[in-house]
Amino acid sequence: MNPEDTDYAEIRQLLADWSAAVRRKDYDGVLQNHSPDMLMFDVPPPFQSEGIAAYRKTWDLFFGWLEGPPKFELSDVRITAGQEVAFVTARGRCFGPNERGIAQELDFRLTVGLRKSDGHWVIEHEHHSVPAT
Amino acid sequence: MNPEDTDYAEIRQLLADWSAAVRRKDYDGVLQNHSPDMLMFDVPPPFQSEGIAAYRKTWDLFFGWLEGPPKFELSDVRITAGQEVAFVTARGRCFGPNERGIAQELDFRLTVGLRKSDGHWVIEHEHHSVPAT
Repeated sequence: MNPEDTDYAEIRQLLADWSAAVRRKDYDGVLQNHSPDMLMFDVPPPFQSEGIAAYRKTWDLFFGWLEGPPKFELSDVRITAGQEVAFVTARGRCFGPNERGIAQELDFRLTVGLRKSDGHWVIEHEHHSVPAT
Repeated sequence: MNPEDTDYAEIRQLLADWSAAVRRKDYDGVLQNHSPDMLMFDVPPPFQSEGIAAYRKTWDLFFGWLEGPPKFELSDVRITAGQEVAFVTARGRCFGPNERGIAQELDFRLTVGLRKSDGHWVIEHEHHSVPAT
């Protein structure tokens, strides 16, 4: 396996671990590979959340929203990685409230920005959104 | 100027040129530094637009929307660049229609993914969004 393949495999695994942690409502797992300077653009307001404490808080709403384990699955994961910086695009599917507050399946767009730090990939940015209606 | 500084300066200039081209409604300028495989997540539907032809089409709506030059300004531009791959986050401000179809100022979140090709930075991905209400 050449170094580039290793980077792609590591990033793919990191995202699989992250989304599995979301499904377990496991805050430590969700935050395990994130930068202290994390910048989050989330589906619901606020406009942006800066820093790891604010990022952690964005999951309160989602985790508190349903009784059971959250649905949170990624597909069409596309990785563009150099030796130090990478970005990823994906399609996500989760449960979210509709206009009447009823749970429904929601497709969202996801972009993730990563930087390699001490030989490990770290998430510095996430952008989750749905098209505006 | 070390090579890393050059990359940051080139990307900053590329984004300034791109947003200036948007304000001129200049399709060729907007598309000048984009990959044929461009993947666009835009503010309005569709969910995603794949390839440079579909990306070009996303600007029809915006350019056709107002008589005068479009407002399209970036601020808080943050660049994370390696030697081959980079991503950028920014806050954008433009004019967009509100629920009643009236022009209003709209703040949006922007993430851009780039790859260096033949020594030049090329945009492979854009993600524009507003928080869901």
